[in-house]
Amino acid sequence: MIRVSVVGATGYTGIELVNILIRHPKVQITSLTTRSKEPKDIQEVIPTLPKHHDLVLETFNLKKVVTQSDIIFLALPHTQAMDLAHDLYKKGKTVIDLSADFRIKNTQLYEIWYGKKHTKKALLGDAVYGLPEVYRQKIKKANLIANPGCYPTSILLALKPVLEKGLVDLEHIVVDSKSGVSGAGKKLSEGTHFGEVNGNFKAYKVNQHQHMPEVESLLKQFSGEKVSMTFVPHLLPIERGILSTIYLKKNKGVTVTKIQKAFQTAYEKEPFVRVKPLGTFPSIKDVAHTNYCDIGIWASNRSKEVILISAIDNLVKGASGQAIQNMNIRVGFPEDLGLI
Amino acid sequence: MIRVSVVGATGYTGIELVNILIRHPKVQITSLTTRSKEPKDIQEVIPTLPKHHDLVLETFNLKKVVTQSDIIFLALPHTQAMDLAHDLYKKGKTVIDLSADFRIKNTQLYEIWYGKKHTKKALLGDAVYGLPEVYRQKIKKANLIANPGCYPTSILLALKPVLEKGLVDLEHIVVDSKSGVSGAGKKLSEGTHFGEVNGNFKAYKVNQHQHMPEVESLLKQFSGEKVSMTFVPHLLPIERGILSTIYLKKNKGVTVTKIQKAFQTAYEKEPFVRVKPLGTFPSIKDVAHTNYCDIGIWASNRSKEVILISAIDNLVKGASGQAIQNMNIRVGFPEDLGLI
Amino acid sequence: MIRVSVVGATGYTGIELVNILIRHPKVQITSLTTRSKEPKDIQEVIPTLPKHHDLVLETFNLKKVVTQSDIIFLALPHTQAMDLAHDLYKKGKTVIDLSADFRIKNTQLYEIWYGKKHTKKALLGDAVYGLPEVYRQKIKKANLIANPGCYPTSILLALKPVLEKGLVDLEHIVVDSKSGVSGAGKKLSEGTHFGEVNGNFKAYKVNQHQHMPEVESLLKQFSGEKVSMTFVPHLLPIERGILSTIYLKKNKGVTVTKIQKAFQTAYEKEPFVRVKPLGTFPSIKDVAHTNYCDIGIWASNRSKEVILISAIDNLVKGASGQAIQNMNIRVGFPEDLGLI
Amino acid sequence: MIRVSVVGATGYTGIELVNILIRHPKVQITSLTTRSKEPKDIQEVIPTLPKHHDLVLETFNLKKVVTQSDIIFLALPHTQAMDLAHDLYKKGKTVIDLSADFRIKNTQLYEIWYGKKHTKKALLGDAVYGLPEVYRQKIKKANLIANPGCYPTSILLALKPVLEKGLVDLEHIVVDSKSGVSGAGKKLSEGTHFGEVNGNFKAYKVNQHQHMPEVESLLKQFSGEKVSMTFVPHLLPIERGILSTIYLKKNKGVTVTKIQKAFQTAYEKEPFVRVKPLGTFPSIKDVAHTNYCDIGIWASNRSKEVILISAIDNLVKGASGQAIQNMNIRVGFPEDLGLI
Repeated sequence: MIRVSVVGATGYTGIELVNILIRHPKVQITSLTTRSKEPKDIQEVIPTLPKHHDLVLETFNLKKVVTQSDIIFLALPHTQAMDLAHDLYKKGKTVIDLSADFRIKNTQLYEIWYGKKHTKKALLGDAVYGLPEVYRQKIKKANLIANPGCYPTSILLALKPVLEKGLVDLEHIVVDSKSGVSGAGKKLSEGTHFGEVNGNFKAYKVNQHQHMPEVESLLKQFSGEKVSMTFVPHLLPIERGILSTIYLKKNKGVTVTKIQKAFQTAYEKEPFVRVKPLGTFPSIKDVAHTNYCDIGIWASNRSKEVILISAIDNLVKGASGQAIQNMNIRVGFPEDLGLI
Repeated sequence: MIRVSVVGATGYTGIELVNILIRHPKVQITSLTTRSKEPKDIQEVIPTLPKHHDLVLETFNLKKVVTQSDIIFLALPHTQAMDLAHDLYKKGKTVIDLSADFRIKNTQLYEIWYGKKHTKKALLGDAVYGLPEVYRQKIKKANLIANPGCYPTSILLALKPVLEKGLVDLEHIVVDSKSGVSGAGKKLSEGTHFGEVNGNFKAYKVNQHQHMPEVESLLKQFSGEKVSMTFVPHLLPIERGILSTIYLKKNKGVTVTKIQKAFQTAYEKEPFVRVKPLGTFPSIKDVAHTNYCDIGIWASNRSKEVILISAIDNLVKGASGQAIQNMNIRVGFPEDLGLI
Repeated sequence: MIRVSVVGATGYTGIELVNILIRHPKVQITSLTTRSKEPKDIQEVIPTLPKHHDLVLETFNLKKVVTQSDIIFLALPHTQAMDLAHDLYKKGKTVIDLSADFRIKNTQLYEIWYGKKHTKKALLGDAVYGLPEVYRQKIKKANLIANPGCYPTSILLALKPVLEKGLVDLEHIVVDSKSGVSGAGKKLSEGTHFGEVNGNFKAYKVNQHQHMPEVESLLKQFSGEKVSMTFVPHLLPIERGILSTIYLKKNKGVTVTKIQKAFQTAYEKEPFVRVKPLGTFPSIKDVAHTNYCDIGIWASNRSKEVILISAIDNLVKGASGQAIQNMNIRVGFPEDLGLI
Repeated sequence: MIRVSVVGATGYTGIELVNILIRHPKVQITSLTTRSKEPKDIQEVIPTLPKHHDLVLETFNLKKVVTQSDIIFLALPHTQAMDLAHDLYKKGKTVIDLSADFRIKNTQLYEIWYGKKHTKKALLGDAVYGLPEVYRQKIKKANLIANPGCYPTSILLALKPVLEKGLVDLEHIVVDSKSGVSGAGKKLSEGTHFGEVNGNFKAYKVNQHQHMPEVESLLKQFSGEKVSMTFVPHLLPIERGILSTIYLKKNKGVTVTKIQKAFQTAYEKEPFVRVKPLGTFPSIKDVAHTNYCDIGIWASNRSKEVILISAIDNLVKGASGQAIQNMNIRVGFPEDLGLI
């Protein structure tokens, strides 16, 4: 049994964390906090909670959280987690940060894309990017885990096998992603008004989404070279789920078999990546409310084109489920405990 | 006042035709037919019709339709229009065919993609592809108009300016399209069950949609060279609308200004194409229930990438509205009569 | 040709007004105003406008509006229309007010339900309640038309025939209404966030909606007696439309035929009320984007129960369409001009 | 550990059963069957299953099911479960039947509403109606459990406290229910086509739904008198959930406190019924994907009206969750095992 706190329990990712953690057999939730001055009843915020529970929503208190928790999840807006993460980390706690604050090692890039000075650069070296399929070994020992963004998770898991094996042309990476509305958070905005979203579909932040540097930095890890991609995110009139359609060109001599093999090798033993049979493709419903990433492949020996399609639930594998997967790894629990 | 018939008035495109035609100030609907043996009450099929009207739904009768109509719209399934189009055409009628039967001049391709022998090859030479922005002059005199498909309309209007001016690399055309459910018609299928579509999103016919040869044939017209594209259509959980995101690479020396100029020249005077200011993008809601095609452009002088995004209502500019636009052109009415 | 202004053109009812008026053959829109300090481009606010038009969005200027308009539509929030209506009315203009400000003659009730003092009581006597099926003759001469609310329109048109003929027990009127989200306006609120509405359904303002006194006042007109009803509104996860299910008990001796006859007499000649055959019922899709009110009746000679179901588009017959119907009546145009 | 089979695992309730059972800590799924001749891969039917499992979908084989199972769930269409239930029951198995076949003791009524002769009347006496909040003691020993319908569950749990305590007038029970589309099953029909449901709302089977006799029979149990209700079900454009709004009249002398007390007494200890504070009301999202029934009460000492609003997930508390709750009770597991 480990003791766990969630800082920022009233946003979408916070709610999803609580909903999973409260059903996790080895977890005791010791503290749920909110930045709001007048904490609401947690049952009102998360009506799907069990009828009987002893959870309360409190304003944040560092000392209390430190005393009562082994693992602390930070589900705060980007730029608002770094100082807190630092304080908790320094007290010897394991911090799993769902914001972008420790994902990008290059603080110049961070500051351009997130519009704020990074105040805890010294910590960036200790932070481990929490994508288990890439950094499982490091996560086992990490005390500061930078949980990946939702778009990056969907893109990176698809691209990793082909980039690591050098199967595709790095000059031609086009990523067309489509995300449900919860990706934009609970904050009120014209863009998330029912009347604006329902029956609609559009692109946004065309080729300038703040997740681009996070993705490109990992792509460089995979391939060993600087890689840039073209990226257009779109807003789907659904609540959860991301589907990314990725257009690539095979390198010379690369066969379909080679591509399939790369995926098999990479993911055969992965508990949460499911590669679909060649020519079949995932849909968002297949992964909604699960921690799975499904990947489909289109390739042909008569064509240079390779098309990869990946689907995740942005709130689960794209955020809170993955955070708990990271917790399981860190603590030594079975990786899928509470997640299946 | 012209006399108009709709053959196949109970499908989505037929219903949309009737809804527009009945409000068109210069049209008299003389006949609505259905293949069903026991014709339903038209008011039940189209409940949005005015309270008082004299429309009835009948089984098809060639003689009656020929006698009573100047213009005949065929809103039939692919492969089921060619014989009828032929008979009506031979009787001297103007036929606007919303099926794919006369869109592809190459019958070999037609037969591969639509799975049926083409029985009226002799007529293909007379058929004019009904995309007014390309073939307006020919449409003025055509007696057999092959009304374009919905995906092709959204793709071709975006690509025409840059291909005609030779601004982009023909080796790199990636089209990622997303369509509402009405594109699949009213036929019952697992894929159109509410429980399957709602909250879901997925790709289908990945790089093998039957609209590909129709598009590629026009792309060749625009560019003067054989062009192939990568094309993945997706199903949106909405009823109407198509948004196509198109990824291109500029040719050497092409500036942003040149690209903008190409669009301005092409569409300034077009009544139904609206080019958005650089860096702003269309959304499906902007064009739903209208005959507009909106186009947005992403381009930069520091990057080879060009991204075009187009949006139409698949049932209006992608089908019935465009058919009526063709009728207006053919008859000599103002092109936007009844369509604004 | 009449000259028309819309004050408050950027909310849902304002937008709907403009969309109908711009296509109305006898109307010239002379002014569109907004309370916003920095008026947006009208094309951005209403992207479905024609490509070419000369509309601009301006801040309100009394003198200009008075000089340029014959008819002025006020599409402002409740409590914010009364002073302006008064000023325009005093200048001899015809004002069609879409707010609740002149709907309730009893200012005490108004002040309880809308939480603000009524500053123009003297005008209430001149205001005509703009439900054409009840007050057509008065509307013809009215210079201040209080356009009905959306729930009231759907309820009153269903109840009028049976109450006027004394067919049902006034002690038992239960109204269960369901409305699309646009009824709540464009204002941002938790309740209209996509994530809150989509996939959800709930009651709100249970038996205490501010439309209750407006309805009950008319019910008294119909029946000649004080009537109270039980009323629960609910929020549907759709954009437009209201469906009201109304539960009644027949008075002794009332036959099904008598009920049907009452509806026939009342609505046979009404251009915008469609009574469905006994035992068939309306759906919101049948009336969406139209000015129709469809009504279905369940009744049996073996049962005391009578169930009436009515459907309207809350933005059209429930607001802007009805306002234009009132304008047509007032000006002497055919009542359905521009509305079919 | 008990061994469990699901007969009919490919419909909505079958899928929901499998999804819950596979995560239930004390259940071993030994057999999943389908009536289809060519069984599909279970992973295709239920894509949300864990990556690794050993489930297969087979054609039904009585002997195999009998040998391998302690508890058998029948998730078959109405009228198709009775013979099979009989055979399994006679072999000494515990059968939990999700169809209507053993819910109505009066076979005359059954035959009128379900249109088929009841072939196993002898068994009706042994069947226990599986609403734990009413028949928990009987369920503990039952070998044939008739799992309640979705509408009945939502209505009966709301009405039980007030009818048992004689608080309301039995002459005035109006039930206005709204259900998501999954209530209609996976079968293809015009009524469940996305284009028909999305953006729409309508009533159906007005005052003649086949669940009425099931409800009325229980209401008689609660009150000791024959009770009839007025019932109109409606179709919501969502997948899951039922919300019932129930209109009642208090008997003389009944206070709000008395009503609240009745609910408190009835449900305080119930694991899956949550009564909301007076004047607050449930929404479908609060109970979606849970086994809870939430109930809200509107009552006032100045009014005869009482309004009850209940919400459940029709596939969970209205079907499969409740079936597993019944299993837990029957087997002696904690009642909420695997359900929270």
